[in-house]
Amino acid sequence: MSNTFIVETSARHVHLSKADLDILFGEGYELKFRKELSQPGQFATFDRVDIVGPKRTIPGVTILGPTRPQTQVELSLTDARSIGITAPIRESGDLKDSAPCKIVGPCGEVEISEGVIIAMRHIHMLPEDAERLGVKDKQIVSVKIPSPERSAIFSDVLVRVTPTSALAMHIDTDEANAVGLCGQEGEIVNI
Amino acid sequence: MSNTFIVETSARHVHLSKADLDILFGEGYELKFRKELSQPGQFATFDRVDIVGPKRTIPGVTILGPTRPQTQVELSLTDARSIGITAPIRESGDLKDSAPCKIVGPCGEVEISEGVIIAMRHIHMLPEDAERLGVKDKQIVSVKIPSPERSAIFSDVLVRVTPTSALAMHIDTDEANAVGLCGQEGEIVNI
Repeated sequence: MSNTFIVETSARHVHLSKADLDILFGEGYELKFRKELSQPGQFATFDRVDIVGPKRTIPGVTILGPTRPQTQVELSLTDARSIGITAPIRESGDLKDSAPCKIVGPCGEVEISEGVIIAMRHIHMLPEDAERLGVKDKQIVSVKIPSPERSAIFSDVLVRVTPTSALAMHIDTDEANAVGLCGQEGEIVNI
Repeated sequence: MSNTFIVETSARHVHLSKADLDILFGEGYELKFRKELSQPGQFATFDRVDIVGPKRTIPGVTILGPTRPQTQVELSLTDARSIGITAPIRESGDLKDSAPCKIVGPCGEVEISEGVIIAMRHIHMLPEDAERLGVKDKQIVSVKIPSPERSAIFSDVLVRVTPTSALAMHIDTDEANAVGLCGQEGEIVNI
C-alpha cells in the first residue's frame, strides 16, 4: 500500500457552540447540511456568518457542523492580518487565550473573547494508518508535497490518530497556495 | 561567513510602464519616493492603484519604482483567486501570456491584456555570493526556513545572479505566512 495521502485545503471556517448558533440564527435553529467532509461526521453547511476584526470584515464565512462545545474560528494568517487580529497557530480545540473577534449572523451577533486560531497543519489518521506509516498520535513530522512549480516540505505537522479518522492532511489556504496545491498527495519524510 | 541570507516578504505590488503611469496619474507624473528596497535602485512609493478582476477589486496596491518597459502586477495566489483571475507562477519580467486585469489610478484606468503574475520564489545575489554558496544564475535550489511553529523547505527556488544584487530571498505573502515568517534567515539545502 502506498505511503502517500491526500492533502486537503482547509479554507477559513467557523464551528459554533449551540448557544452561539441560537443567538446568531435564532433559538432552536438547525444547521443546513450541504455536504459531508472527509472526516466522518463533519459536514459543510449552507449557513454563513461574517467575521469582524478591528480593521475589516470577512463576509460569508462557512459554518461547519455539527455544533461544538466552544465556538472556534479558523482563519489563515493572511485572513487574520487582513482583519487586524493576531491569532495563534494552534491545534483545533486548543483555544485558551486564542484571539477574539465579533461574529455576525442573520439574527444576532456575538463577541467571542477567544476562539480564533490559525490551524496547525496536521494529518488525520486511523491507528492502522499510524502503524503502517510508523508514527504515533501527537508526533510532529515533516511532509513532502510535490508540485510542478512550488514543491515544498512542511515540517511541524501534527499527527492526529483517532479511531474514526479518514487519512488526510489538512493545510490552510496560505500553505496550499505556497505549494500550488492541486490534487497532489503528501508523504512523510525524514529530513 | 555564514551561508544564510535574509528572507523578505514581497507583498502584492505593481511596476508601471511610463505610458501607463501617464494614463493613471496624469501626463509627466513622477512617482513619489517613499523608501529604498533591498535591491539597489528599487524603491517603494507613496503611489497606489486599484487592481480590478472579474470578481473583486484590491484597493490601494503599492507601486514600486522606477518605471519598467512593461507594466507588471505581482499578486499572491490568495489575491489572484480573490479577484477571480488565474495568474501563472513566473519569474519577474516573463510576462508573455500572463494574466490580464484592469488597473485604476486617480486620473485614469488601463486594461492590461497580460502582466499579472505570481512571482516565482527566488534569491537575489551577487556573483561572489553565488560562488560562496556554490550555485549559478538560473539554478533551481531548495531553501530551508526555520520557524518556531511552521518550519519548511521550499523547493523550486530560482537563483538570480546580477552584479548589482543584494543577497536576499523573496517570497510572497502566502509563502511567508506558510512559514510564519518573522525575521528568520534561509539556507540552501540539498534534499
